[in-house]
Amino acid sequence: MAERIDYSDAKSQQHLAELFEFLRIPSVSAKEEHKQDCRNAALWLQGKLKEAGVGKAELVETAGNPIVYAEHIHHPNWPTVLVYGHYDVQPPEPLELWHSPAFEPEIRNERIYARGACDDKGQVYMHVKAFQELMANNQLRCNVKFVLEGEEEIGSNNLDLFVVQNKEKLKADVVLISDTGIISNDCPSITVGLRGLSYLEVEVTGPNRDLHSGMYGGAVPNPINVLCGMIASLHDQDGRVAIPGFYDEVVSLSANERAELAKVPFELEAYKNAIQLKDVQGEKGYSTLERTSIRPTLDVNGIWGGYIGEGAKTVIASKAHAKISMRLVPDQDPEIITKLFTAHFTAIAPPSVSVKVHPHHGGVPVVVSTETAAYRAASKAFEIGWGKTPIPSREGGSIPIVALFKKELGVDCLLMGFGLDEDAIHSPNESYGVFNFFKGIETIAGFYKEFGAKEA
Amino acid sequence: MAERIDYSDAKSQQHLAELFEFLRIPSVSAKEEHKQDCRNAALWLQGKLKEAGVGKAELVETAGNPIVYAEHIHHPNWPTVLVYGHYDVQPPEPLELWHSPAFEPEIRNERIYARGACDDKGQVYMHVKAFQELMANNQLRCNVKFVLEGEEEIGSNNLDLFVVQNKEKLKADVVLISDTGIISNDCPSITVGLRGLSYLEVEVTGPNRDLHSGMYGGAVPNPINVLCGMIASLHDQDGRVAIPGFYDEVVSLSANERAELAKVPFELEAYKNAIQLKDVQGEKGYSTLERTSIRPTLDVNGIWGGYIGEGAKTVIASKAHAKISMRLVPDQDPEIITKLFTAHFTAIAPPSVSVKVHPHHGGVPVVVSTETAAYRAASKAFEIGWGKTPIPSREGGSIPIVALFKKELGVDCLLMGFGLDEDAIHSPNESYGVFNFFKGIETIAGFYKEFGAKEA
Repeated sequence: MAERIDYSDAKSQQHLAELFEFLRIPSVSAKEEHKQDCRNAALWLQGKLKEAGVGKAELVETAGNPIVYAEHIHHPNWPTVLVYGHYDVQPPEPLELWHSPAFEPEIRNERIYARGACDDKGQVYMHVKAFQELMANNQLRCNVKFVLEGEEEIGSNNLDLFVVQNKEKLKADVVLISDTGIISNDCPSITVGLRGLSYLEVEVTGPNRDLHSGMYGGAVPNPINVLCGMIASLHDQDGRVAIPGFYDEVVSLSANERAELAKVPFELEAYKNAIQLKDVQGEKGYSTLERTSIRPTLDVNGIWGGYIGEGAKTVIASKAHAKISMRLVPDQDPEIITKLFTAHFTAIAPPSVSVKVHPHHGGVPVVVSTETAAYRAASKAFEIGWGKTPIPSREGGSIPIVALFKKELGVDCLLMGFGLDEDAIHSPNESYGVFNFFKGIETIAGFYKEFGAKEA
Repeated sequence: MAERIDYSDAKSQQHLAELFEFLRIPSVSAKEEHKQDCRNAALWLQGKLKEAGVGKAELVETAGNPIVYAEHIHHPNWPTVLVYGHYDVQPPEPLELWHSPAFEPEIRNERIYARGACDDKGQVYMHVKAFQELMANNQLRCNVKFVLEGEEEIGSNNLDLFVVQNKEKLKADVVLISDTGIISNDCPSITVGLRGLSYLEVEVTGPNRDLHSGMYGGAVPNPINVLCGMIASLHDQDGRVAIPGFYDEVVSLSANERAELAKVPFELEAYKNAIQLKDVQGEKGYSTLERTSIRPTLDVNGIWGGYIGEGAKTVIASKAHAKISMRLVPDQDPEIITKLFTAHFTAIAPPSVSVKVHPHHGGVPVVVSTETAAYRAASKAFEIGWGKTPIPSREGGSIPIVALFKKELGVDCLLMGFGLDEDAIHSPNESYGVFNFFKGIETIAGFYKEFGAKEA
């Protein structure tokens, strides 16, 4: 499949110009200082949805950032698609590693570079454009509802209430989400499994103030050393998470299921080379694909303490901190895992220090069925657009909201995303292929055609 | 002993006003941006030494910050005292923990709060004032040389060359240094042992860029987790440093020597309460006093990696960093220890990551004799001024320069400092007792009288 695409025509240029406007809004939900930027992103989307032809587009206030809700209801007998996405983005730090500023999008080598280019502004905007195109050509045979939130990157804490309070309004036949990826442009895929998440922040306190390491070193607990020891003990020799009860609810795949998974195209050397990794590392007895899909993990996402400036400072810090997250698989429950972690982490602290554990957001792991009309429609759209039947794949990331829609609305999600590993979402120099952006619009439109009513 | 002191007279107020001028200069040697501030501190000292009555005061240029050299040579038969000190200070971070700005000195509860209040500007300035007083009253029976450098906090890298090139000029009977402390104002002491230092910075690299922990978590080495494991392994179960060869050159104290050390007044509960410590922690088989004086240590002074901002970011960092220092005791050689650490740290890295080790400064551990005329003079000065014979004590900190003076000039150092633990040097809210400042001036003057020629 050719990954190059001609986007020199006026319409394509217009699409990109609009996406760039969206990307320029620094809607970082994790930071209080970007609260107004998040609202601006929501307002911008509301305007674009109206231009695209929705009958109604509104900002729903929440305790946090507003939710953009829009709908185009045309015929009671048509199938209804609920499009979910998010306009908030991850923090761009560390800024010094970006080759171009995170909120000044530019195209290099056929890729759009900006925070949110793929996750999730680029993918959200494909939906706006696909909808607009079908409307303009009178080809839409679905009712469409848009739920675009601004807190996905911080745990979607205020979406629950909105969904619970609006079950009737949000009724749909499928929830369509483009916030995942495909295996490669040569090997399109549809995500059928997502890992869950438990995310915590820990603080270890030794003395009540920073101390001179010459005067006190050797006699007092150094909270950084202590924290390192505690973190090190969270994995055993085989790379398994050493929290009691952690694996109790993990569903093991059958030999057949593992064999199926092993058929997914995967080149270890190419995987390593793409991120210049000396070697992979993980739980003993599992392949790299299994480690990133069907097995749970524990990773430190950030650590800090003591003097981290230029030069040397001989200090023993009063406190050390870490952000730690666990990726979960069916049937692990993030709330139970959070409790297990908290109890264990508190228990392993030496008596010389005190420990605080603060939970951030969580997400339930999910598995999506391939035996639905929506999945078949998506598969068909890929066949037509990409010339290949997409592979059902399991991805490592979590979209906490998937479980919520199932529970509250009783509706399955279809995870039809178009990102690639190389998009480096959540990293400096996040990007999104121009090809994937335009091909995504086409494939989404194709999905509506397959899924929609056969008669007007 | 009354720790309150009347400093309301005009002369005392003038002394403090001058010290405050000195403290307002942010002469942080660890930061390039403060280069000019360091020079300004040197120029300020040069001016004050001239006012105090030295015959000569000059700025000696080095590859780094200038050295202030001054001398008052009066009579070839008088004993010569070389006063060493430093005008550079530790970085003030974390700034948010200071109750008043680090470079805006103020007195609260009879204490002078400012970065450098004790270490070492306050102690250096006591020498200027003691000298000035003796000169004004025609009581000085010593020749005096001042060597005040601006790079002590970053390893005194350029002092070596100055000393080596000026052996004749620096000839002295004793090097007098006030950069240490006393046990308490009720229990004056003279430092007779100092630990050395080896300080390194390490970097662990996994993938070549930050990764999404959902997509990659579980399959790639997380450099933060790896670094934590490596740091944890640097101590064994008994709190001993687990670097092969680390203890090879450590001189063990005899049972008698340990019994002598145990006589130093020490209250464990008071020690813990002063820093609100739940419990002490250290090498098995040694007391807290031993752990901070005659035993070597390893402490992480700073650690950082991944996302350390507000909220949550599900990232696997490309790199993790730590600043690690070891306090050394006789006869450990900092250069050898640095090599042992580097070799060991590199060896224990798993094959999936790469490791860099960058040495910062080091310092040789020293023991000072109590059998010298200078020690006896200092002891006598304390007896007269404080009403008690000072205890010879071993301190944890290092003053790398002590070994240099011994080696190059063949001269012993006398470590007559007046700081207290509660001064919190190297920490936020560093302070220095007004009592200690003025009592120090008096005791230094007393030392000159005892040590000086008995006839004019």
